[in-house]
Amino acid sequence: MVGKTPLTGGFTIPGESGYEELTLSLAKKWGADVVRDSDGSSLSEELLEAGYGVYSTICPIRGHNAFARKHPETLQQTFLMTDPVTATGETLVIRLLKGYFTEQFLVNDAPEAMRYWQVWDRTAERLVPADCWDYLPAGQGAAGEEETAAGHPAAGKESAAGDRMAAGMEASVALRGMTPWHEYTVSFLAYRIWEEISMYNHVTNDWGEREHLMPIDPMYEEVQDYLLRWMEDWCAANPKTTVVRFTSMFYNFVWIWGESERRRNRFTDWGSYDFTVSVRALEKFERRYGYAMEAEDFIHQGKLHVTHMPADQKKRDWMEFICDVTIRLGKQLVEIVHRHGKQAYLFYDDSWIGTEPYGECFGEMGFDGIIKCVFSGYEVRLCAGVAVKTHEIRLHPYLFPVGLNNAPTFMEGGNPARDALNYWTQVRRALFYAPIQRIGLGGYLHLTEKFPDFTDTIAAIAGEFREIRALLAEGEPLKYKTKVAVLHAWGGLRPWTLSGHFHETDMHDLIHISEALSGLPFDVAFLDFSEAKTVDLFRYQVIINAGRAGSAWSGGSAWEDDALAARLTEWAYGGGVFLGVNEPSAVPGYHRYFRMSQVLGVDLDTGDRVCHGAWPIEHRDAAEDRAASLDAMAAVHGLAAERDRTGEGRLEAMQKLSKSMRLPEKQHMYLTEETTAVLAEENGILSASVHPFGKGMGIWLAGFTYTPQNARALEELLLLAAGEPQGSLPVTDNPATGCVYYPKSGTLAVCNHTLAPQKTTVRFGGQVVRTEEIGAGECVFAAKASI
Amino acid sequence: MVGKTPLTGGFTIPGESGYEELTLSLAKKWGADVVRDSDGSSLSEELLEAGYGVYSTICPIRGHNAFARKHPETLQQTFLMTDPVTATGETLVIRLLKGYFTEQFLVNDAPEAMRYWQVWDRTAERLVPADCWDYLPAGQGAAGEEETAAGHPAAGKESAAGDRMAAGMEASVALRGMTPWHEYTVSFLAYRIWEEISMYNHVTNDWGEREHLMPIDPMYEEVQDYLLRWMEDWCAANPKTTVVRFTSMFYNFVWIWGESERRRNRFTDWGSYDFTVSVRALEKFERRYGYAMEAEDFIHQGKLHVTHMPADQKKRDWMEFICDVTIRLGKQLVEIVHRHGKQAYLFYDDSWIGTEPYGECFGEMGFDGIIKCVFSGYEVRLCAGVAVKTHEIRLHPYLFPVGLNNAPTFMEGGNPARDALNYWTQVRRALFYAPIQRIGLGGYLHLTEKFPDFTDTIAAIAGEFREIRALLAEGEPLKYKTKVAVLHAWGGLRPWTLSGHFHETDMHDLIHISEALSGLPFDVAFLDFSEAKTVDLFRYQVIINAGRAGSAWSGGSAWEDDALAARLTEWAYGGGVFLGVNEPSAVPGYHRYFRMSQVLGVDLDTGDRVCHGAWPIEHRDAAEDRAASLDAMAAVHGLAAERDRTGEGRLEAMQKLSKSMRLPEKQHMYLTEETTAVLAEENGILSASVHPFGKGMGIWLAGFTYTPQNARALEELLLLAAGEPQGSLPVTDNPATGCVYYPKSGTLAVCNHTLAPQKTTVRFGGQVVRTEEIGAGECVFAAKASI
Repeated sequence: MVGKTPLTGGFTIPGESGYEELTLSLAKKWGADVVRDSDGSSLSEELLEAGYGVYSTICPIRGHNAFARKHPETLQQTFLMTDPVTATGETLVIRLLKGYFTEQFLVNDAPEAMRYWQVWDRTAERLVPADCWDYLPAGQGAAGEEETAAGHPAAGKESAAGDRMAAGMEASVALRGMTPWHEYTVSFLAYRIWEEISMYNHVTNDWGEREHLMPIDPMYEEVQDYLLRWMEDWCAANPKTTVVRFTSMFYNFVWIWGESERRRNRFTDWGSYDFTVSVRALEKFERRYGYAMEAEDFIHQGKLHVTHMPADQKKRDWMEFICDVTIRLGKQLVEIVHRHGKQAYLFYDDSWIGTEPYGECFGEMGFDGIIKCVFSGYEVRLCAGVAVKTHEIRLHPYLFPVGLNNAPTFMEGGNPARDALNYWTQVRRALFYAPIQRIGLGGYLHLTEKFPDFTDTIAAIAGEFREIRALLAEGEPLKYKTKVAVLHAWGGLRPWTLSGHFHETDMHDLIHISEALSGLPFDVAFLDFSEAKTVDLFRYQVIINAGRAGSAWSGGSAWEDDALAARLTEWAYGGGVFLGVNEPSAVPGYHRYFRMSQVLGVDLDTGDRVCHGAWPIEHRDAAEDRAASLDAMAAVHGLAAERDRTGEGRLEAMQKLSKSMRLPEKQHMYLTEETTAVLAEENGILSASVHPFGKGMGIWLAGFTYTPQNARALEELLLLAAGEPQGSLPVTDNPATGCVYYPKSGTLAVCNHTLAPQKTTVRFGGQVVRTEEIGAGECVFAAKASI
Repeated sequence: MVGKTPLTGGFTIPGESGYEELTLSLAKKWGADVVRDSDGSSLSEELLEAGYGVYSTICPIRGHNAFARKHPETLQQTFLMTDPVTATGETLVIRLLKGYFTEQFLVNDAPEAMRYWQVWDRTAERLVPADCWDYLPAGQGAAGEEETAAGHPAAGKESAAGDRMAAGMEASVALRGMTPWHEYTVSFLAYRIWEEISMYNHVTNDWGEREHLMPIDPMYEEVQDYLLRWMEDWCAANPKTTVVRFTSMFYNFVWIWGESERRRNRFTDWGSYDFTVSVRALEKFERRYGYAMEAEDFIHQGKLHVTHMPADQKKRDWMEFICDVTIRLGKQLVEIVHRHGKQAYLFYDDSWIGTEPYGECFGEMGFDGIIKCVFSGYEVRLCAGVAVKTHEIRLHPYLFPVGLNNAPTFMEGGNPARDALNYWTQVRRALFYAPIQRIGLGGYLHLTEKFPDFTDTIAAIAGEFREIRALLAEGEPLKYKTKVAVLHAWGGLRPWTLSGHFHETDMHDLIHISEALSGLPFDVAFLDFSEAKTVDLFRYQVIINAGRAGSAWSGGSAWEDDALAARLTEWAYGGGVFLGVNEPSAVPGYHRYFRMSQVLGVDLDTGDRVCHGAWPIEHRDAAEDRAASLDAMAAVHGLAAERDRTGEGRLEAMQKLSKSMRLPEKQHMYLTEETTAVLAEENGILSASVHPFGKGMGIWLAGFTYTPQNARALEELLLLAAGEPQGSLPVTDNPATGCVYYPKSGTLAVCNHTLAPQKTTVRFGGQVVRTEEIGAGECVFAAKASI
């Protein structure tokens, strides 16, 4: 393999007009075969003619301000709810956009929109009759009448929508006949007058006077007609483009900005459909589904409906409805692209809402490729699993002056080479297992001029990528027999991801588990709760349920299903390993809070059991352990005959691993069974436990934090539990490193997960295979490894 | 005052036959005026004749084994539920007493009892029809059929109930037609064959072969008749007794022991009524209330119904029913005692269930005094508030070889003098504010022989007690104008206490708050949620709601009452300070989890808001603070004119106090309002906050731990919030000490709350009043203090 790998190809470079020489020299250095434009940059004729494939990024729903101004009713919308206001008397005036970023929103007070407005008494959770409130358009909401004292800042900025904003800004609702000391809210439809990704790029890159781009909504037939014509024209006008990169389709993830700079972000959800709503969509939905969605179905008491919580049937229906509209128009656009001899790729971020790349109908759109912006291994797996020909990952950092959390990147104080290598080590673990055809960068190439070490690092990364891609193209790496399923509310429709990037979802245990699994040699499936009742669970040796009670990841009310609990219990009794993390299977109303407590052997006391004595949370001495837990442990997987050696050894190994993971302690946990063995605790507060159950067992962990070391510990824990020896695969003795073996070519890849040099020894079946010294973040490929 | 205080009286000494000389010499040393017996000890003629008042302890429901053997159906009972068992097929055999201490319980399989038995499918939460299960009495439950593998230990001990136990031990229930992989439980009635306090004393003091005393149930008319006769006979036979001390009435708090020594305590609840159940009670209740209680009303999915959780109406009805029975018979017994020229005191522990000393009907029994065993200040207040003539507190340590958690006391390794002083410093803080007439000890006096320092310490304690008692008898100490109400589900029916002693309930925030308040110069009321809607809340400047969501202390579903939320909101807006601790007013189903969030300005995200951006949890610089929070803060209590100085100073003082309390950080908290000011946080996790609301405010603390220092910080925080200057009372500059001023006699008491010497300066209105050096745990009394 080594040496045969091509030195070019599979690489997309962002070109930049005015920097033609730089573009072409870096394209050569990095082995690029494609040049692309970016939001805010364009490609000159020289670059278009340079012999590279050409990606052109288009965002179908923005950049049509002339059309938008002519058809303002086709602007995209959303439901908003005012912050709750306490009535101190029977009347109350509530300003609609108070606390919202008025450059983003404009009240939609058209009669057909106002039919959907709602006023709620949030204390009584009761809808206020429409005859108890009046709309006061701009200028009529007298400030003196208001219950709330804080002033409203003037709209300082000039923009296309400036006048409209000024007009809508003071729009209010006057309530009468209220119950004093109750809280009230108004839900209303608002136009979105600044396309959010453009808004973010504008603000982040300080684009100043540049016109605010407005999003138009293809739910309206006139927009659909307009976009089909526009796509046709665009293709004709861009003959050099080989790949049209859609960024993305029509609806952005939900991103609601606030008035105050101290709370600019009011809501961000990469998986939510709240930005798909409009009067036309509500009307169409009602005709199609036979029932009407109302404001509260989206507003949900002001909580909206975050992707991390289970979706109700109405939300599922709405998603299906939006996907249908998206896919039908998307298919027509892709057909136009194809008719012009170009390929169509989808960017799996930004306006991806409605495409659902793992949905049943995604394929109908006919995309040739998918591009995913990645920070982490799980995002590589998410990209790789989509059923298209070409999978491309967009590496970080973007060629922007600042990166995450406005940290300096391509500017003084930044170290983009280090950042790039750091992200690459995160991502690479998963690349060994997931076929990805291309990598690329985004942003403004000229920013790299002052960072030659960055351009060297990217060249090295590109080389490693091509090496791994070639290995995988020959055949799969060696994997364990143990198959793992992750059980959550979204299941296979949304595998690997939660909603957004790692750093946005790292408060959830499951993203850490997913990140660990993304680079481990297990086959991993994602099941939703209804699939868990129909598929053959005995395909899987391990099922993981991880998250906070009530979340989509733990499952919430899905656990009210007796058949689900019974089926998983049967599977565990028959030999399955149920791994619960944090508050697995938790739902109120039953005799235990964790529905799987009979398997897990632990439960969480929600307060009802504070007077109950429970089995002490303590490590027991070996003699006692053998007498109690280990009698049962040893029976697991037919190891009874090896009881003394294997049984005891396995529990001790699990305890060692659990302790090495530095798990949090979780308050209020108790052992439900005498046979539950404590794996880790601190001062009697539980961190990890194992409970033998029939031929299987339940393992509970208080949490899980992804690190390469913890990923290794999780791997070993799962193997111990499933009874598969770790020695069946080559393994490094240094968990800061990892190795993957490709039997087809006999190649052993050994990589350093850290930015410090590492020494590591690879063993296989107890024998030393080789010893390596690996530089910071590097990967070495050993051909004809003697495995 | 000083010097005029009597040197004797108000002291009850436990006498011991065989140790007459010791008893009399210590009685003299301690100034005792009363001699008592204890469980397991008696008073000789010499002691009875020594000229002291004589307390005799009686426990009406135990010590009648001959009667119990003749009328076994009148033994006290309880509902028990088996541990849940998972069905691996359609049949299942469940052993009834598996996991229970069989020396305590015996299955009641009489036909009238079995009508109340229930079998539940706990997976489906469904009652199993009676024709799907059969009772297998002892000997018929073949072990081979059982689903559970663990063996059942032989009943090794000899006892009066030995045969019965052996017979009932293997009793089982056989189920058929079950749903595989569901969990099943059996609820059944069991006789209690060992009175629990006697059982505890027996085991703790190693009484070996002594007969197990059985509890008889006065719900049965034959027991009532028997007890009335017995009381009459007892009085006649004990002419020297001056005070009959009832220990206590008829029903013990619930104390369920387990089979395994690793889990001897299965359930302990000092406030629960589950030990009052019997076939007769169930029948009588149904006739009286018109509806039947069933097993599940007590079993409650195996959770039983802990006092820390809100009671439902059925439980309230049952409590009322039991109190009525208790008070009617109790009254008759007390009348007999009075007829014999003796007084009757109630011990406010052990079998106190059914007496409810703060209940409306308690007075009908006619008790002359109440005796409370105390470790803490709040227990002193609990005792002092009962409407009887004499209040006596039983000090710790008990004269037992071992104390709490089996720690050595009157044996090698123990230091009972230090223990006594330590407990005294806890208790004394409250004595300054609560009239207590007597103190005393319990246990075996001969154990003190080897601990002369203990007898000295008790003499000093007795002297201090008489000093304080005399001061309080003259008039109340100086207190703040600020009145505090504590709001919880039990309100005034169960003030101060939660359920049991401090060390048993210290996982609840409220017990720490109560302990702090018990020794602070505030008037304190306890309100339940229904009272909070009817009383004039403006009597109180501060209302405290403290506890975990769903608990009786936070309130749980009581907060579903809109009127409650509205009324408290109105009160806060009008100037009240709502202090919420941990999860105050939390209930699911509303737009916020904390119903008082509009006052508190904070809420807990249960997962729905994980994508919502909130106001950053950070200390803001002074300039910003003045601009936002402090504008509103300064308006509180009309301090607007002093905005710059007072407003800012008050917030800073609150921040300093909050930080000094070393509060926990609570995950998932968010600020609901921009005007909420952070008082304490760590890495963006909130510990304390304040939110101005109208003329009042909401203060939120993540928790509260009682220490003398934290009690002082709480005092200052409440004064700051309520706008009352701390300087209006004398105060020490060292929070390890405290002072109380009695205006009537002009006496200033200054005491050391610690076991180390302390130096302290007392200030009043900014002036130094005096400086003291106080020995370990001591109190000094300064007459004619220049206040």
